[in-house]
Amino acid sequence: MNKKNLSQVHNRIKPYIHKTPIFRSQLINEMVGTTVYFKCENFQKMGAFKMRGASNALLSLSEEQREKGVVTHSSGNFAQAIALAAKQLNIKNYIVMPENAPQSKKNAVKTYNGNIIECESTAISREKLAEKIRTEKNATFVHPSNDLDVIFGQGTAAIELLEEEPALDYIVVPVGGGGLIAGTCLAAKYFSKKCKVIGGEPKNADDAYRSLQSGKIEFNETANTIADGLRTFLGDKNFPIIKEHVERIIRVEEDEIIHAMKLIWERMKIIIEPSSAVAFAALLKEKETFKNKKVGVIISGGNVDLVNLPFRE
Amino acid sequence: MNKKNLSQVHNRIKPYIHKTPIFRSQLINEMVGTTVYFKCENFQKMGAFKMRGASNALLSLSEEQREKGVVTHSSGNFAQAIALAAKQLNIKNYIVMPENAPQSKKNAVKTYNGNIIECESTAISREKLAEKIRTEKNATFVHPSNDLDVIFGQGTAAIELLEEEPALDYIVVPVGGGGLIAGTCLAAKYFSKKCKVIGGEPKNADDAYRSLQSGKIEFNETANTIADGLRTFLGDKNFPIIKEHVERIIRVEEDEIIHAMKLIWERMKIIIEPSSAVAFAALLKEKETFKNKKVGVIISGGNVDLVNLPFRE
Repeated sequence: MNKKNLSQVHNRIKPYIHKTPIFRSQLINEMVGTTVYFKCENFQKMGAFKMRGASNALLSLSEEQREKGVVTHSSGNFAQAIALAAKQLNIKNYIVMPENAPQSKKNAVKTYNGNIIECESTAISREKLAEKIRTEKNATFVHPSNDLDVIFGQGTAAIELLEEEPALDYIVVPVGGGGLIAGTCLAAKYFSKKCKVIGGEPKNADDAYRSLQSGKIEFNETANTIADGLRTFLGDKNFPIIKEHVERIIRVEEDEIIHAMKLIWERMKIIIEPSSAVAFAALLKEKETFKNKKVGVIISGGNVDLVNLPFRE
Repeated sequence: MNKKNLSQVHNRIKPYIHKTPIFRSQLINEMVGTTVYFKCENFQKMGAFKMRGASNALLSLSEEQREKGVVTHSSGNFAQAIALAAKQLNIKNYIVMPENAPQSKKNAVKTYNGNIIECESTAISREKLAEKIRTEKNATFVHPSNDLDVIFGQGTAAIELLEEEPALDYIVVPVGGGGLIAGTCLAAKYFSKKCKVIGGEPKNADDAYRSLQSGKIEFNETANTIADGLRTFLGDKNFPIIKEHVERIIRVEEDEIIHAMKLIWERMKIIIEPSSAVAFAALLKEKETFKNKKVGVIISGGNVDLVNLPFRE
């Protein structure tokens, strides 16, 4: 991978994604003592950055692979992203979703004509069913985060951010499966001379933090966090990139996530999901690190269940 | 008033307001069969278009008036707007708010160093107290909607909309006190050859609809609507403009307001207040009127109480 390849990825997916806006808030800048550039992937197609990686993965398929179709497993945004990308590119798709996934998420996938196959709610049964479909249908498996084409696609959000704001000192992103942060690292490496990448992670699912400490991929025994997109763990494709390039990971508590989310809803009037709030919560937690710097924050998505919000008096 | 005067108003307030973005949604366009341009005044300073009118009213004061200060009464966005505009222009202010106004609204006014004076919660006691302060302090009274400088200021949102989208067939706005719709009418008159202005109003507070029917200002005996910014009535300054220029007013039910609001939150990922949803609800209600047209919708504000939202399963 080099700068030219990443630009090619970006150009290739451009017709299938939105170039999302970058928002700023004077009030928030005063609050944190820095200048924050929010890259609003909540305004991305299907409501999250995952559209970038999914589009790139499907555009990487050969003609033969396109005919056989793709299979993935996801209970959340990646399911929607594959469904919409497959619809746009007219590719057969098999989307394994746990039977207890929220109806709203299943409905969203159906909106994009996604072909849902339900499984039991364990990680093993999802993987098994996806593998079964892969072999039976000769379909191509696309992992939501541990896939190089997906990683390169996710990196294009940071490319757009750095193209508009080349002087950024930091980009802060949430860490879940590792696709976004790995892609962001590559973008920062090739599109900036100085920009460092910092991850935000829920304390209650701090597998990536622990992985950087131990030098090997760690897992979560439990992952009791409101940031439901960040309960997953790193993989062999993204971990080497993360290990080499991520400056560090800041862990945040659940109440810090909700506070950061509420602040952005109230002050910026945009809807962001809890997983997105984790990056901003990390910035709020360690204001000293970012003081008087230029900081990009990737708002990863805006898909929330409006009838079940965490805000209390 | 003419085009040049309105442009002067716009230029005068520009340093004190945001030029808000215009959002579009492919999904919503498909849903309504038209092209909708949402003018996002929810991203305006203090979260609503009221900042425009308040800024213009305060900029219209003489040096002597500035020294004596301004007085207004409002339980909502105009209180915040006067507080922030007065702070920006360093003008003394007296903001009469009902004692039972939500604490969140009072806190917002305090954030901008607004000088709150509490009154009983009736319309009469607010007006009396404001009048008392006006005479005692020699302050200038600024009405939230029935004031020509306020009306001209509110019209600048539509000017920006028409400057970016000159081919608009309609602009749809919510109708409360009448300041926004009157200003929008003037902007459409002077900045477009064909654009018509349509109001959206809650059925449960349809005083403006009835006023257009009867030809005189009507009132609401009760105003039991979630669109709390639209419970007020027209005045002698704005009604003549509205009577002359408004194409018509579409009335919507409470569940239609909530449905429209939820649609925008879910699909566009932006936070809009119920009063703003009324305009979009009117468009949804009479799709045939707007079919294959270019329609601007002014999203009037985004100040909502996040712990008390109307969304249900």
